Amino acid sequence: MGGVQSFRELCDRPKNTNVRLSLPAVCFVWQIAMIILFGIFIRYDEESDAHWIEHRKHKNISSDIENDFYFRYPSFQDVHVMIFVGFGFLMTFLKRYSFGGVGFNFLIAAFGLQWALLMQGWFHSLDYTDGKIKIGIENLINADFCVAGCLIAYGAILGKVSPVQLMVLTLFGITLFAVEEFIILNLIHARDAGGSMVIHTFGAYYGLSISAMLYRPNLDQSSALHGSVYHSDVFAMIGTLYLWMFWPSFNSAITDHGDAQHRAAINTYLALAATVLTTMAISSLFQKHGKLDMVHIQNSTLAGGVAVGTAAEFMLMPYGSLIVGFCCGIISTLGYIYLTPFMEKYLKIQDTCGIHNLHGMPGVIGGIVGAITAAAASEAVYGQEGLINTFDFVGDFKDMVPSKQGGHQAAGICVAVCFGIGGGVIVGGILRLPIWGDPADDSCFDDEPYWELPEDEESIPPIVQYNNHMRNKDVVESNFSMEQH
Amino acid sequence: MGGVQSFRELCDRPKNTNVRLSLPAVCFVWQIAMIILFGIFIRYDEESDAHWIEHRKHKNISSDIENDFYFRYPSFQDVHVMIFVGFGFLMTFLKRYSFGGVGFNFLIAAFGLQWALLMQGWFHSLDYTDGKIKIGIENLINADFCVAGCLIAYGAILGKVSPVQLMVLTLFGITLFAVEEFIILNLIHARDAGGSMVIHTFGAYYGLSISAMLYRPNLDQSSALHGSVYHSDVFAMIGTLYLWMFWPSFNSAITDHGDAQHRAAINTYLALAATVLTTMAISSLFQKHGKLDMVHIQNSTLAGGVAVGTAAEFMLMPYGSLIVGFCCGIISTLGYIYLTPFMEKYLKIQDTCGIHNLHGMPGVIGGIVGAITAAAASEAVYGQEGLINTFDFVGDFKDMVPSKQGGHQAAGICVAVCFGIGGGVIVGGILRLPIWGDPADDSCFDDEPYWELPEDEESIPPIVQYNNHMRNKDVVESNFSMEQH
Amino acid sequence: MGGVQSFRELCDRPKNTNVRLSLPAVCFVWQIAMIILFGIFIRYDEESDAHWIEHRKHKNISSDIENDFYFRYPSFQDVHVMIFVGFGFLMTFLKRYSFGGVGFNFLIAAFGLQWALLMQGWFHSLDYTDGKIKIGIENLINADFCVAGCLIAYGAILGKVSPVQLMVLTLFGITLFAVEEFIILNLIHARDAGGSMVIHTFGAYYGLSISAMLYRPNLDQSSALHGSVYHSDVFAMIGTLYLWMFWPSFNSAITDHGDAQHRAAINTYLALAATVLTTMAISSLFQKHGKLDMVHIQNSTLAGGVAVGTAAEFMLMPYGSLIVGFCCGIISTLGYIYLTPFMEKYLKIQDTCGIHNLHGMPGVIGGIVGAITAAAASEAVYGQEGLINTFDFVGDFKDMVPSKQGGHQAAGICVAVCFGIGGGVIVGGILRLPIWGDPADDSCFDDEPYWELPEDEESIPPIVQYNNHMRNKDVVESNFSMEQH
Repeated sequence: MGGVQSFRELCDRPKNTNVRLSLPAVCFVWQIAMIILFGIFIRYDEESDAHWIEHRKHKNISSDIENDFYFRYPSFQDVHVMIFVGFGFLMTFLKRYSFGGVGFNFLIAAFGLQWALLMQGWFHSLDYTDGKIKIGIENLINADFCVAGCLIAYGAILGKVSPVQLMVLTLFGITLFAVEEFIILNLIHARDAGGSMVIHTFGAYYGLSISAMLYRPNLDQSSALHGSVYHSDVFAMIGTLYLWMFWPSFNSAITDHGDAQHRAAINTYLALAATVLTTMAISSLFQKHGKLDMVHIQNSTLAGGVAVGTAAEFMLMPYGSLIVGFCCGIISTLGYIYLTPFMEKYLKIQDTCGIHNLHGMPGVIGGIVGAITAAAASEAVYGQEGLINTFDFVGDFKDMVPSKQGGHQAAGICVAVCFGIGGGVIVGGILRLPIWGDPADDSCFDDEPYWELPEDEESIPPIVQYNNHMRNKDVVESNFSMEQH
Repeated sequence: MGGVQSFRELCDRPKNTNVRLSLPAVCFVWQIAMIILFGIFIRYDEESDAHWIEHRKHKNISSDIENDFYFRYPSFQDVHVMIFVGFGFLMTFLKRYSFGGVGFNFLIAAFGLQWALLMQGWFHSLDYTDGKIKIGIENLINADFCVAGCLIAYGAILGKVSPVQLMVLTLFGITLFAVEEFIILNLIHARDAGGSMVIHTFGAYYGLSISAMLYRPNLDQSSALHGSVYHSDVFAMIGTLYLWMFWPSFNSAITDHGDAQHRAAINTYLALAATVLTTMAISSLFQKHGKLDMVHIQNSTLAGGVAVGTAAEFMLMPYGSLIVGFCCGIISTLGYIYLTPFMEKYLKIQDTCGIHNLHGMPGVIGGIVGAITAAAASEAVYGQEGLINTFDFVGDFKDMVPSKQGGHQAAGICVAVCFGIGGGVIVGGILRLPIWGDPADDSCFDDEPYWELPEDEESIPPIVQYNNHMRNKDVVESNFSMEQH
Repeated sequence: MGGVQSFRELCDRPKNTNVRLSLPAVCFVWQIAMIILFGIFIRYDEESDAHWIEHRKHKNISSDIENDFYFRYPSFQDVHVMIFVGFGFLMTFLKRYSFGGVGFNFLIAAFGLQWALLMQGWFHSLDYTDGKIKIGIENLINADFCVAGCLIAYGAILGKVSPVQLMVLTLFGITLFAVEEFIILNLIHARDAGGSMVIHTFGAYYGLSISAMLYRPNLDQSSALHGSVYHSDVFAMIGTLYLWMFWPSFNSAITDHGDAQHRAAINTYLALAATVLTTMAISSLFQKHGKLDMVHIQNSTLAGGVAVGTAAEFMLMPYGSLIVGFCCGIISTLGYIYLTPFMEKYLKIQDTCGIHNLHGMPGVIGGIVGAITAAAASEAVYGQEGLINTFDFVGDFKDMVPSKQGGHQAAGICVAVCFGIGGGVIVGGILRLPIWGDPADDSCFDDEPYWELPEDEESIPPIVQYNNHMRNKDVVESNFSMEQH
């Protein structure tokens, strides 16, 4: 009788993954809500409004080239590539979940950036004279940043959730992010240009907490699909390289014009270079035959970019960047080798992409490096005006000093971790409800539940193929003609 | 006897695809013609000429940064990526036509941009003092735009034509484009920054008319190859994402410096985001089990970028962009589900990539949105100077008013459609001549006729492989050694 | 007994490829050396230092936009993409060496750019007041350029060396490059914006000489893996296209602000377009059935960019660029057809990627084109100030004239060739030592010795698969469950 019972469960399960009503409903409702809210709240800022020409003359700006667009658009496009191609292709490494990796990444990001424009707008870009949010290129970059937090979280639960769950994760994730960011940047007055704390630490612990809440004891039923094939690993390298190459743009995209953008790019470039060498070294050293592991190359080589995020705009010095990158390559790779299996076995946290090694630990390290660098700042190194500019010691904070700023930076780390864990536990609880269409334990890491798959030889085991032939006369004929071709 | 006849036809056909003389001849003749015409006509403009330093002082320009190069080069490179990687990889989705997709796209674009520099130069950049065309970065962007029209047309006939036919299609396509563009932008004085009418509408109807003229009743003989495999779909997503990410650069690349470029990028960014959600929703809703279809994700997610092309530089407002994107995701996806099969069955138009859904309908919608937005423009929204600047109400058109501009925009749509259909019918007629080396009905969507293919297991059906082994001793040995490896 | 002997050799060989100690040792030692040297020598330059704000006021610069960062950062990122994705993916074409192609490229470049910052810094950016190297965005671009030379060299020996050998090749290659560059640019005062001589000629002959020194008479034992499969050729097209598209940025990245950057981009864009057409023509013309060969499309289409490197910033004229591209497409493709087999057979130089056709010959041609264009320069064409600016006829060289400059350019070619060949012979000799862990003749072009490979059906010949099943119970079960899935 138990056999019948479990057989029924097995039959029923695939029905759960039918998102034919829930996915379109969520997409439509949320997109319509966006249109209404944008209609009420969002307008162009003075640099993207047609009144710019009058504004320019009024402000005595001599040339259109001083429109913020020209300072930030190249960096914006690089960040945009990181979000959609970088994160998207990094998650194509699973042999039969490439569609889900790149496709759901696309869905999350496209929704998330709209909600982020609103949430961040209310906190940062609200024009109190007319109650409107005024957006320009910097808002687009920040929206992309905000989305990055949710995409990091997706990495932990890749292959184990439905697209509807991801939409819910994103809705709450963006909301939490905007609040956390406001607290860290505005209330605590921590600096975090590249988002080591705000983006990476938050995103990683948010995702890990959700993954813990959604723990699947029988995930090994999907172990046959929980790995890569040769070409899927090459696809993932596209993601890795675009993240790696454009990380200097990520960390410099919203820093101050001039030397701060310049310096942030240099520091990030150097930190990442050092990470590659130590990642390769550790990967080879800890394998039996000294062979390199693609998982490490795809992920740990990026840890330096995460860890230099907060301090990139500071006078970290080129050798400082190298040291940060050096350490993070080691820590991140060792994390993949020892910590991820440990976390799965003892902490019941299943972390598909190893985001704890790529974003969690390096993010916290980045926060600490930022705190130390800020605390050590001096007028000798920054110049009098440079110090004020770099740390924004103006307005309410004109009495700040570097040592105190260091403490504020450290406080920022704690806020990010708390928001990540707290938010993740709550959202994870919501996602445990049996209404979201998530896959059964034996169909995780599989595109089949949510995607129409092409009928290629590779993907179809012989016996299924035979049955298809019998059922579908057209297919038989087409295959036949192909063989004769 | 009929059997013998048809047998002979079958044998003769593959010989037709030998382009060993025609392709090199066309390439050499046209490239030599380009060199001669460039020698006679094309020179650097004042911003790319070594006299710039004197010109700069003369014009009292304070810094090199005001050279147009710095306003437009980042956008140019993004557009360049869209043309070669975006369009190229979007067309790799067929299981055995990836070489042709990306390779012939490369050929068309490389030739087309040279011819476009000349054709557009004669209309727009001719210096009447010395009869030379003076080119700078904006001409390169426009040449890439011009090429886009032909690449869109290629989408309709992908896999069914020879490279020689594509060269002919491009020669005429660029010529028609330049004339059509001159009529729409200069004579009619319609605005079309992102080319909804000029590029997308024209390109789509040009391609569809050619495809109608080249209708193949027996195309189902190639149906076995008329589909994707898992990895070819992932390759196509590279194309999709680069088009999607860089579309804001496409629509803003040649708009006015300052707020217009800024605004065009924001509008496009938002329209595209909304399109992703409605595409996913419709794709899921209209499939039996709610599964997403890669064809829709790869194509319809881009429709918002097309449809916001004309109005992107106007004060469309952020919510306006979202509405445009919202609608186009729905229309485009429904087009793939209902209209493409209908067109093939009843209108005898075979549209390989579904360009009518991605470029045709959204292009026309974009023209209409542009006309409405222009007609609704007012000094209250744009400011007095802003209105004149945005719509270029100067010179011969200094008496124009927004409502009249709306009418001119609408006229532009008609010109684009007429040029597309008219030109396509004529060029399609030319391409029906039996001299171009196009493939037989049973070898469409196949790289085999035009490309040396690597001998991988995947591509060779077992029986052919066996015969090859018998014929070719070397191959046998090499396979043998590989097996022993 | 001979059989036993050779059997032993066969058994011993695979052990040689274990780089578990040597690779981590080299990575750690060299990275720590970098940190120490960076600590001693490298600081931010005045545009990336926090003192910029004071410096700006002091120099009376009106806007942050005149920071060199905004002139060069977009080009820098394009060059960065060329180095990591362009070169990396171009080398994924081999059916079982894609990990090594893209992965070792990543390793070489990440190490090389650090060492290049030091080497080039000592020669070009040393601040004599404090003995520090001051770096900014231009140094990062130059470091990427320097790395390109080593990556070109890697192309010749792709698949035949160990990662440790590559690290050695890079250490010496960067050193030689910096000296050679100093001689050519500073002592000889040749101009070489796009590095036809400095980068491509040097890199190609360096790599070819090393390959000659490492000649393997029995390389045909790996012939089964010395080719592509369908999808690896598509991956390689990603590399090709990114190199092709961003080459205008490469050649313009470090030229003078303003017209020189503008002109270099235009010339390169045109030369590359012409190359595509003649490459396709020759590829088709010299194959039996007029079919195109992917090897040519992937490589020879880029020759025009190499050959226009030196002259791109000169007044080469648009038709001049087309002529250069036209010729190089022909020469490069014919090189692949005739010269590469000839070199392997008679000169004992095995050139995996055909770098002699893509970088060697076009590089020398580029040097010659540069010499001719420089010698033909006149005030009529450049303007008085333009001539001085373009050729940098200032300081010690204020008495230079174009004809003499032409001679200096020609001298530059010779230096590049001599450094390439001389350096390659010496480094090749070092790399012949039996301590570097290079693969046996029968495991060249194979990722297996240096990478953990996923166990996909494609990669494992049936007999090995069977043995694995027997040895490894887990794998059997997981495969079983997959089949039932």
